[in-house]
Amino acid sequence: MTVKTRLYVDQPLGEGNRVSLTQPQAHYLFGVMRLAVGGAVALFNGRDGEWRGEIIEAGKRKGVLECTLQSKPLQMPPDVWLCFAPIKKTRTDFIVEKATEMGAAKICPIQTDYTNSERIKQERLQAHAVEAAEQCGGTYVPEVTSLQKLSAFLDHWPSKRQLMFCDETELGAATSLAAASRGPWAILIGPEGGFSPSERKRLHAMPEAHVVSLGPRILRADTAAVAAMTVWQAALGDWA
Amino acid sequence: MTVKTRLYVDQPLGEGNRVSLTQPQAHYLFGVMRLAVGGAVALFNGRDGEWRGEIIEAGKRKGVLECTLQSKPLQMPPDVWLCFAPIKKTRTDFIVEKATEMGAAKICPIQTDYTNSERIKQERLQAHAVEAAEQCGGTYVPEVTSLQKLSAFLDHWPSKRQLMFCDETELGAATSLAAASRGPWAILIGPEGGFSPSERKRLHAMPEAHVVSLGPRILRADTAAVAAMTVWQAALGDWA
Repeated sequence: MTVKTRLYVDQPLGEGNRVSLTQPQAHYLFGVMRLAVGGAVALFNGRDGEWRGEIIEAGKRKGVLECTLQSKPLQMPPDVWLCFAPIKKTRTDFIVEKATEMGAAKICPIQTDYTNSERIKQERLQAHAVEAAEQCGGTYVPEVTSLQKLSAFLDHWPSKRQLMFCDETELGAATSLAAASRGPWAILIGPEGGFSPSERKRLHAMPEAHVVSLGPRILRADTAAVAAMTVWQAALGDWA
Repeated sequence: MTVKTRLYVDQPLGEGNRVSLTQPQAHYLFGVMRLAVGGAVALFNGRDGEWRGEIIEAGKRKGVLECTLQSKPLQMPPDVWLCFAPIKKTRTDFIVEKATEMGAAKICPIQTDYTNSERIKQERLQAHAVEAAEQCGGTYVPEVTSLQKLSAFLDHWPSKRQLMFCDETELGAATSLAAASRGPWAILIGPEGGFSPSERKRLHAMPEAHVVSLGPRILRADTAAVAAMTVWQAALGDWA
């Protein structure tokens, strides 16, 4: 029988390892999912693959699981960062969820000249990434970094990381990814007002930059994030 | 100066045409957007392109605009239907919004064996398509059809319409769209529990069917809708 409930834990997983549940995890497994001693869930921690965890103690606020066998090896996503300018709360949550499902290795909120948000709730966004990984069957959870200014982010740009950049004002200048190099990449999604003229100038001048078109309609930032990840995964990622 | 506010109306647009606002439209333009006589909005009705509409009467509950010049021709999307099994309310709304932004010509909610919803709020979903068209700069609004059963939908399948179908259980059987024919298409997104065995059998047996992979992770239905539209638009649609 397939184990349907998946749970992210931060403890090491391996044959015979015991995992203690936090209070919210115990509430979820025993209160919400109605599981009991003898039941099983799929455990992953982002490092050791997925393990079958059998429930050996179940309490109202605590519980212990024992790892019996590895059900999936660790599957790392390709080395692609999804960088985006945070927008309204719900849509920012959606971008983190979708970037995780689509296989981003790291999620970087970026403050641009036209970004209204001056802060993000990093812990809350990281929790969304965990939940998305539980849901999508992944064994890896991308790190959500703290909010960085675009200028500082580009000042420290790693020279071998290619940058896919979607500039909706840039008609006709799109390039194809088909001939682009594999290796480390980042995808940058602008804010809904677009990039400022000086940001666009700087991005276009980067030798690592690849401008990609996402069609003739204006996409919301969360739609653009999924579309851009799709274009990249299909050309250079793990969808081949 | 660019006219930023876009408004969908159901009246004919053309030089000198006058358009009467409904009460919610008057509230939106004059109460929320604080526009007044002499101001302008972009009008479209899905048939006549986009027109600059100048406000010639502004009241609390009514208003009149006059079309002065056409700012965009009608831009029809490619002939692709987005067919999906409705899920929870918010995510169904999102699918309609995203299908509109991504350029679907028609949006068809489909009841499958594993679909929980037995009805949809068609008017509400149509209103979401209108709002997405206003937002994304489109001049066309896809029709949201009533909920149809998958079996009946396939019974009346138009023989020349190709069907792109994403079967997450079908590893390794994905085909490329690169050599597929242009012309009418439909994209079918299954429910989160997948298709039933008999549905899968029937879909695979259709001569019009093309199975496309959306990568190794399980995507939520709303993510899958955007990813599938991206794959199609990039290969056969108006993103080229």
